Amino acid sequence: MLQRIVLLLLLLPVLAASAQTARDVDPFLGTENSGNAFPGPSLPFAMVKPGPDDGNNRGNSGWTETGDINGFSQLHTHGMGGGAKYGDILIQPTTGAPQASSFSSPRADERASVGIYHVALTRYGIGVDITSSRRTALYRFTYPRSDQSTSGAPNAGLRNILFDVAHILDPVQDYGEAQIVVRSSIHVLSPTEVVGQHSVIGGWNKQITPYTVYFYAITDTAAASSGTWHEKELAPGSAEFIGGIAQGSGAYLTFPAGGPLTISLKIGISFISEAQAKQNAMTEIRGFDFEGTHAAALAAWDKALSTVTLQGESNEDRDTFATAIYQSMLMPVDRTGENPLWHSTEPYYGDYFTIWDTFRTSSPLLDLIAPARETQIVRSLVDIYRHEGWLPDGRLGNVTGRSQGGSDADFVLVDAWLHHLPGIDWTTAYQAMLKDAEAPTPDPTREGRGDLGDWHKIGYLTIEGTDRPGSKDVEYAANDFEVALLAKSLHHPAEYARYLKRAGNWENLWDSHATDEGFTGFIWVRHRDGSWKQPFNAYARCSWGGDTFYEGNTWTYSLFVPQDVARLIQLSGGDRTFVRRLDAFFSEPNHFDVNNEPGFLSPYLYNWAGRQDRTADQVRDILAHSFHTGRKGLPGNDDSGAMSSWYAFSRMGFFPNAGQDVFLIGTPAYPKVSIHLANGKTFTIDAPGVSAANKYIARAEWDGKPWTRNWFRIEDVERGGRLVLTMSPKPSRWDTGVPPPSMSSSPFPRNDPRQLPNRKRSRRS
Amino acid sequence: MLQRIVLLLLLLPVLAASAQTARDVDPFLGTENSGNAFPGPSLPFAMVKPGPDDGNNRGNSGWTETGDINGFSQLHTHGMGGGAKYGDILIQPTTGAPQASSFSSPRADERASVGIYHVALTRYGIGVDITSSRRTALYRFTYPRSDQSTSGAPNAGLRNILFDVAHILDPVQDYGEAQIVVRSSIHVLSPTEVVGQHSVIGGWNKQITPYTVYFYAITDTAAASSGTWHEKELAPGSAEFIGGIAQGSGAYLTFPAGGPLTISLKIGISFISEAQAKQNAMTEIRGFDFEGTHAAALAAWDKALSTVTLQGESNEDRDTFATAIYQSMLMPVDRTGENPLWHSTEPYYGDYFTIWDTFRTSSPLLDLIAPARETQIVRSLVDIYRHEGWLPDGRLGNVTGRSQGGSDADFVLVDAWLHHLPGIDWTTAYQAMLKDAEAPTPDPTREGRGDLGDWHKIGYLTIEGTDRPGSKDVEYAANDFEVALLAKSLHHPAEYARYLKRAGNWENLWDSHATDEGFTGFIWVRHRDGSWKQPFNAYARCSWGGDTFYEGNTWTYSLFVPQDVARLIQLSGGDRTFVRRLDAFFSEPNHFDVNNEPGFLSPYLYNWAGRQDRTADQVRDILAHSFHTGRKGLPGNDDSGAMSSWYAFSRMGFFPNAGQDVFLIGTPAYPKVSIHLANGKTFTIDAPGVSAANKYIARAEWDGKPWTRNWFRIEDVERGGRLVLTMSPKPSRWDTGVPPPSMSSSPFPRNDPRQLPNRKRSRRS
Repeated sequence: MLQRIVLLLLLLPVLAASAQTARDVDPFLGTENSGNAFPGPSLPFAMVKPGPDDGNNRGNSGWTETGDINGFSQLHTHGMGGGAKYGDILIQPTTGAPQASSFSSPRADERASVGIYHVALTRYGIGVDITSSRRTALYRFTYPRSDQSTSGAPNAGLRNILFDVAHILDPVQDYGEAQIVVRSSIHVLSPTEVVGQHSVIGGWNKQITPYTVYFYAITDTAAASSGTWHEKELAPGSAEFIGGIAQGSGAYLTFPAGGPLTISLKIGISFISEAQAKQNAMTEIRGFDFEGTHAAALAAWDKALSTVTLQGESNEDRDTFATAIYQSMLMPVDRTGENPLWHSTEPYYGDYFTIWDTFRTSSPLLDLIAPARETQIVRSLVDIYRHEGWLPDGRLGNVTGRSQGGSDADFVLVDAWLHHLPGIDWTTAYQAMLKDAEAPTPDPTREGRGDLGDWHKIGYLTIEGTDRPGSKDVEYAANDFEVALLAKSLHHPAEYARYLKRAGNWENLWDSHATDEGFTGFIWVRHRDGSWKQPFNAYARCSWGGDTFYEGNTWTYSLFVPQDVARLIQLSGGDRTFVRRLDAFFSEPNHFDVNNEPGFLSPYLYNWAGRQDRTADQVRDILAHSFHTGRKGLPGNDDSGAMSSWYAFSRMGFFPNAGQDVFLIGTPAYPKVSIHLANGKTFTIDAPGVSAANKYIARAEWDGKPWTRNWFRIEDVERGGRLVLTMSPKPSRWDTGVPPPSMSSSPFPRNDPRQLPNRKRSRRS
Repeated sequence: MLQRIVLLLLLLPVLAASAQTARDVDPFLGTENSGNAFPGPSLPFAMVKPGPDDGNNRGNSGWTETGDINGFSQLHTHGMGGGAKYGDILIQPTTGAPQASSFSSPRADERASVGIYHVALTRYGIGVDITSSRRTALYRFTYPRSDQSTSGAPNAGLRNILFDVAHILDPVQDYGEAQIVVRSSIHVLSPTEVVGQHSVIGGWNKQITPYTVYFYAITDTAAASSGTWHEKELAPGSAEFIGGIAQGSGAYLTFPAGGPLTISLKIGISFISEAQAKQNAMTEIRGFDFEGTHAAALAAWDKALSTVTLQGESNEDRDTFATAIYQSMLMPVDRTGENPLWHSTEPYYGDYFTIWDTFRTSSPLLDLIAPARETQIVRSLVDIYRHEGWLPDGRLGNVTGRSQGGSDADFVLVDAWLHHLPGIDWTTAYQAMLKDAEAPTPDPTREGRGDLGDWHKIGYLTIEGTDRPGSKDVEYAANDFEVALLAKSLHHPAEYARYLKRAGNWENLWDSHATDEGFTGFIWVRHRDGSWKQPFNAYARCSWGGDTFYEGNTWTYSLFVPQDVARLIQLSGGDRTFVRRLDAFFSEPNHFDVNNEPGFLSPYLYNWAGRQDRTADQVRDILAHSFHTGRKGLPGNDDSGAMSSWYAFSRMGFFPNAGQDVFLIGTPAYPKVSIHLANGKTFTIDAPGVSAANKYIARAEWDGKPWTRNWFRIEDVERGGRLVLTMSPKPSRWDTGVPPPSMSSSPFPRNDPRQLPNRKRSRRS
């Protein structure tokens, strides 16, 4: 009887089905350990991300774990490596005499949950709470009682709000990625209003055309006096200042000494004008309603998180999963109505950092759980092409760049096609992909693939023709496969054939004599005359400008042929050798890097080689060792949610082969996952016995029928299927069906039971 | 007899008539004492100005008197204050191991004459000679014998040429005027060729849209090895690097140890492309012909200087006068064929620094002695308006800005009209002036007059409406007078009347109660409600953003009414009081500032008050105390030749009232001056007895007839007149004719014996 009760108790969580809610999210997850997570409040994909900036201007999200707080700026990124972007329009509450510099404060009592951030500035004894809407941040500053008579000094007890328009993150970063404020202006309009703007160049994308941020700030309490500063000199009473290159400039509002004082301040942000910033502030937040604004943020996130429900998960499971979904929905940011570059009725999104990172997991995840949002993002990409002539890979500060490899927006577009996202202008989208595949670009670090001459003429990228030819080459081949897919779907048979052929070009850099650790055959780099770079070095990697591989060595890139894993296995010596190579890849140091996107698919490659159980091993192993709760919860840069999306997929038990109609089955972490689709149906994975030990699949059923493939299709999901997995502590060969598609062994789409939908071109909606 | 011989000897120089030649010029005149003169070689108005850059990046022309030499860059300004511009594409010859930084050297044996600069870099024992053509600099590096075996170190005895594309002047200047290289690239093409480019923002005009400089360098000797550097790290063998924001980057060529070695290097510069830079290098200089290039520079300057001949002058006279003319012809620079912004068949000039400075003397001087050049300059101004919508006041780095006050290109255009310069599109020119006079501007520090609302509505600029309202107000009135002049000439009577009326608006800021040092009535600033700023302060002056006067106090600006000196005299209390005020102005400290353009006309104002002898006193006094030979020869910034032009006119004995058909007679410094006009005629001023004592005019004759006016007209000059002045050591009232024109007392053009030429609109030539 007792045993039964225990059993019932054990089953209880399994029976409790609930959506993740905003309360489950920990915005501080991944803030340390170089995760660069943004801990401040933000609506889903919101333009404004107010948060604390470290006094030493370190910290790509503004926040660092140790530094003093310099103030609170209004724009940040989430999970971004390299040179920082943003940190615009810093405000700081202080006490005493207003200061033009050195106003950082140590902090205490720092905490955040969805839609709210709190900290105490111990230098001043001021409490700070922040919440936000889409383009407006709302601050509540709680000043302590102050008394001028205590010290007798004329400024004792004053309470101030400083506005530093010359502030920016990373103003002295090396590697040519510093941010520089090239122009700023500030204008105290009235005792409650300050407006201004600044223009900024640089940062990770090294933009040399400045972006301009406008703001309008209003307080609920009238200041007794105000002023500006120029360089570091205060100009009391001055209402206006225009600053030049890297020139200190700002303004302050001062409130008199007296009892405890709470001042609310809201600050609207715009990329269009100060007037637009004012309109954003005045229409998005009624008065200074902090609780209402916070409640709206919670509601927005509850809704965003509600498309996936777990069942049987632990509290920790719930928190980390909700946080992963949350962090997948911070970027890119919705700047619709805030495009300073062209007028359009299409959505406008910014801060793609970078599609090279996010195409692998973020876009496929949004296709599933936020298709309306992903539709907007894809329409924005197409509109950027329409007006600027190129699809972006990276885009920050309203400028395209940098592009890290090929033209990876191709994957995003094809995924949108495969997921039947509506309202996308496919003719233009396809043109954009063709342009990337064909047109020379003046600056391949900014847009287009670049250096295509060798690709077109001799079928591989050369050391002479481009930098990082090894990593770019395999990427170009995968990109061309995407072009082929869309060409086929849009009924361009000649182009389909041409690009399918080019999708095999990666083989031209397969050096069948290259050997390392007993494995033979690796991707390696060649000269234009056909000779291989000597000597072969399995660990060679390089940065921009180098002549081998970017952010990874050939161990990683010799596994990146997502369009033709079957052929890759063949060249690598067959299934068994390939499995041994994968085993080595995941066990040796300097091979697999969980941190780095080019290896994202690699744990799932076992599925092609008949060892899905090893996929389960590797996925479980990576999850256990690299992902945790709390501030060190991510193994490295979240790359604007790419890592979080990898986590979300891997925990749900399946993984996308991006840009293809394929999800690979991994190993679920939860007894049950339900995805509530936009079409009203629900896709479910049931794995009732799942546990740390029960990580292997013994048997699978789809809608009650045996399922022997270790993969499924987007339309299987869209039909609202139910995949039931019987879990076991022992590996077994349950997946006796056809392996996942590969271009050569199962030529697309011959072995594919379904043709790509033979749709008419969607009309713009 | 002896006495006669002495007399004959004394007379000899008087009889020797000769043009100034290039050999008379001292490029080092004005390099010290903040003159900021550029000492390197330059053809007249040439785009390329190669010269040494101080290792501490001080020195607006690159050169400083004490610093080590960091290297030699290809673009500089002449006589520019504030934040520096240019210093692009630094090259430095060195010995030993190539270095990515800290390669400055002390110097010795520095000297320059027209078209050539020489210095020895004592750290390396290398001699450097530089000459140049319009867009190409030619260097000759003489390396000492070097022997690797002496020290045994592997790099001992190597000889290098470094290319630093990240170098720029003033990279950390305060006041928001730093220059920042936002992108650079370098490419070693072959053992003799290096190409590259960089893009730069900032500097005095705070430009936030970068300009890009391209170069192509070729040596006559093949390097044995080469490399690049990134940040400060050498990358031997690397052929290419792209640098970001403020990121160190460069390249080097290395030549082996051995006997003495002379390497010639030419470096073509372009604003269009590396290909254009190569074309400039290969077509402008044949091979590496140093002597031929130098000879061509000498010939060009001989020709440019030949339009004025002196007679009876001392050697020192000849040198300083030739140098003044030379320094008046260094800027703006001819970038025809190098405009990256638009295609046009019109000439394209850059580096207007600034018309606020140069309209007073430089343009009138070029109208006389280089009318073909001034025609190109004016056509370029009109073309800039045509394509960008505004006439520039300042323009640097292919960007308009900053504008220091009103719209002073008005004076330049009207002067061009008055001097009958051909081929100017007067319809467009007049539209451009109207736009400045009427249209609001988004950024008055960049273009247009700005803040015109009060000017249009209440007839003066207000403290509330604009910054620096006092100085701007008097300037707007003078600008409107220029519009009136051209309106009259182009037969727009209504506009003529409107602008003539507005030309009197300066009176609205005439505070008839303001008193200082016993003088009553000064220009002062008012609020929009009509009240005067309290209290009156005759010494108030301010910078950008202030509420009084720019670069001068009201003593200076209460004398700046060039269109109506008669009315000014009346308001100031009549001729005698006005003369006393002028006397006080020139004798008291903090009043007249020879350094500063707003006071340029003031020594000549005595001519309106019947005391031309006092003009002679003041002019002689200023010349004696503020202008000298040698490096301290200028009292301050030459302002791209404005000061030199003031000197040239004042030494020739007359002075322009800019933008009017009036030259004021001063006091000649030379017994005879002849200006050989473009129409083939010669205008001459004969003052045979002139000396330090004989500075007063006793009698004047024009073409043999008595001349009783202390002024003459442009057409008097153009007819090739001969003005003979009998000089005397005693003042006398010789000028009994009508005083110079004034708008009110001799309403333009009523008292003017000639109507403005009733010309048809010129056709574009």
